[in-house]
Amino acid sequence: MAIASSISATAGSWTTSLELLETPVPLVDLDRLDRNLDRVSSYAGNHQLSVRPHIKTHKSPRIATEQLRRGAIGLTCATPLEAEVMADVCADILLAYPPVGKAKLDRLMSLPERVTLTVSLDSQESAEQLARAARERGRSVGVYVELDLGLHRVGVSPADEMLQLARFVSDSPLLVYRGIAFYPGHIRSATTSEPELQRLNADLGAALRLLDTAGLGPGVVSGGSTPTLWQSHNIGGLTEIRPGTYVFNDRTTTQAGACQWDDCALTVLATVVSTAVPGQAVVDAGSKALGREPSAIEGDGFGALLNRPEVTVTRLSEEHGVLDLGRTAWRPQVGERIRIVPNHGCIVVHLHEEIYGVRGERIETSWPVAARGRQPRSAALSRA
Amino acid sequence: MAIASSISATAGSWTTSLELLETPVPLVDLDRLDRNLDRVSSYAGNHQLSVRPHIKTHKSPRIATEQLRRGAIGLTCATPLEAEVMADVCADILLAYPPVGKAKLDRLMSLPERVTLTVSLDSQESAEQLARAARERGRSVGVYVELDLGLHRVGVSPADEMLQLARFVSDSPLLVYRGIAFYPGHIRSATTSEPELQRLNADLGAALRLLDTAGLGPGVVSGGSTPTLWQSHNIGGLTEIRPGTYVFNDRTTTQAGACQWDDCALTVLATVVSTAVPGQAVVDAGSKALGREPSAIEGDGFGALLNRPEVTVTRLSEEHGVLDLGRTAWRPQVGERIRIVPNHGCIVVHLHEEIYGVRGERIETSWPVAARGRQPRSAALSRA
Repeated sequence: MAIASSISATAGSWTTSLELLETPVPLVDLDRLDRNLDRVSSYAGNHQLSVRPHIKTHKSPRIATEQLRRGAIGLTCATPLEAEVMADVCADILLAYPPVGKAKLDRLMSLPERVTLTVSLDSQESAEQLARAARERGRSVGVYVELDLGLHRVGVSPADEMLQLARFVSDSPLLVYRGIAFYPGHIRSATTSEPELQRLNADLGAALRLLDTAGLGPGVVSGGSTPTLWQSHNIGGLTEIRPGTYVFNDRTTTQAGACQWDDCALTVLATVVSTAVPGQAVVDAGSKALGREPSAIEGDGFGALLNRPEVTVTRLSEEHGVLDLGRTAWRPQVGERIRIVPNHGCIVVHLHEEIYGVRGERIETSWPVAARGRQPRSAALSRA
Repeated sequence: MAIASSISATAGSWTTSLELLETPVPLVDLDRLDRNLDRVSSYAGNHQLSVRPHIKTHKSPRIATEQLRRGAIGLTCATPLEAEVMADVCADILLAYPPVGKAKLDRLMSLPERVTLTVSLDSQESAEQLARAARERGRSVGVYVELDLGLHRVGVSPADEMLQLARFVSDSPLLVYRGIAFYPGHIRSATTSEPELQRLNADLGAALRLLDTAGLGPGVVSGGSTPTLWQSHNIGGLTEIRPGTYVFNDRTTTQAGACQWDDCALTVLATVVSTAVPGQAVVDAGSKALGREPSAIEGDGFGALLNRPEVTVTRLSEEHGVLDLGRTAWRPQVGERIRIVPNHGCIVVHLHEEIYGVRGERIETSWPVAARGRQPRSAALSRA
């Protein structure tokens, strides 16, 4: 793939050997990344689904470029900085987050004019703020009306509220009603999800009929998550998917049955720093490197070793991860290196400023997590 | 206090009004910060304890300077970058972390010569690596032998192992045996901890007698955590404390009884972005801004509102925090601003690049989280 050769200017001293890299540090297996990108591209092609990947997972224009090269029709972002950074490589951006408040709206309206911008939102207040900002700048903005189809996080209920909001958007001069969006984050399993999928299909079908009857039939029906990714063609009416985690996958994705262990591309390289307390080894990847993200299986730790999945990270302090050696005969030495598959890759990326791309034991490239942070693009550029 | 006036160059557009600041963003109440700093300074002075604060909580040379101005004898760091950044303002640094591996040792040995460096470690391997690095550079390095007094994370058991390691350090030409260190992180309560404190005292006393008998009586006995902070004078033999969280405090500190709610200086300012789902409100501070740190009380959320502590953040996604409105009559509107006291402040700081210092509703200053990250100082400087 094209992610190669250029070496980050922020990496103080460069090495191509994994052995010399300072830990803790996130690694991406480039072969697995390639495969993960290709697989979604083929699946979507086979089922005539548009792909608008959520870049929150990687926050990198380089990986976004690979997604676009494989047919993604645009990108999904959650923060103004993500949109600003991605505007360099993509002219069709969805902010899947209501831009509430003057500061966020100002930044959004300042995106380059060539960017076709769409926003998903779930309230009249948010739509009014957006309409006002659009009017002030004379800029047209697309809108997806966000529905709650079971996650109960955000989203209007697919009934009267939905119709009112779609109508308001449709009637606002500079807002363009582009469709509806939902996020089935409550479905955590890709294999045993049939009853939940049936309920989702029924609710979505009812919503679509309501909208059609009201003359508000949506151009786009945007949904999908990584756990439900391979079920997307079984969701009636869906036209667009927004998977994020699939680029790297993680322990949670394997637990959901949406990928195999060998599809996990992201690991945290760590060093054993203490074996003083019997029955455990302590590594230098703690909650500040790995994230305190729960396992899908209660009490099953915060990550597991790539080459010894039976060894889990059972306790975390800020800079310490405790490996439970209860299920292995392996007894690591102080100084030994290990690679941890995190429970949740998106958090790992957010916790680091640079990612290293590897093939086997060789470092091939590195890239900054360019859209990490909150501050405006100018500040992000000076960091990247 | 001296943290004032200078305004960060990385903040794109400056405002002194909290109302216009983009969310989510961490705020520090400067009056409370002052009070927290003063309180520890007085306590330590009254009890003839040296203070060597752990800067992992704030990662800022500005706050470190305030700690030193109030009598701290040096600083405690966990990572090479923290030590590099703090070397600008302090010439006596403890790395309370075994620097295992060539990359970390190289950086440590490259700290300015004027810095008196001490390292705490718990293994022969780590001590040998350090001795070798010290020999190669001709640099003398102090060592604390790290003991396990109940946390069972790192640390040698306070028996033969301890003596062997102290002897090895003492006999190594460029290593200076400065004392022992421990971290009583297993004691989570400052008020009901008497039996645990008695056990700690007994174990520490036995360790000190063993060392004395062997002619290895430690010059420094370094311990302490924020929860046990105000019990430090009841730990026999203790000469130095290394509190971190006390500068800001957090919900966990209040739950441990080590501070009052009004001592919590750090909050995350967030905006209500959705009230579409009944019984809850959604704010724009999710796990990427607030951290998924558990409450001391099982199931009690990830933070609570500063002015409505009965309202907790019960669910987190990456960019969404769900407020449970079940225990309040308050019904926020989309756009309303709230301040969240996090469960664990150190993680919040690590998740952000800039902190805003406020008095009341007025922003007085801001500072970068200068020692955040992993990469060498040169890269950190370009980010700060």
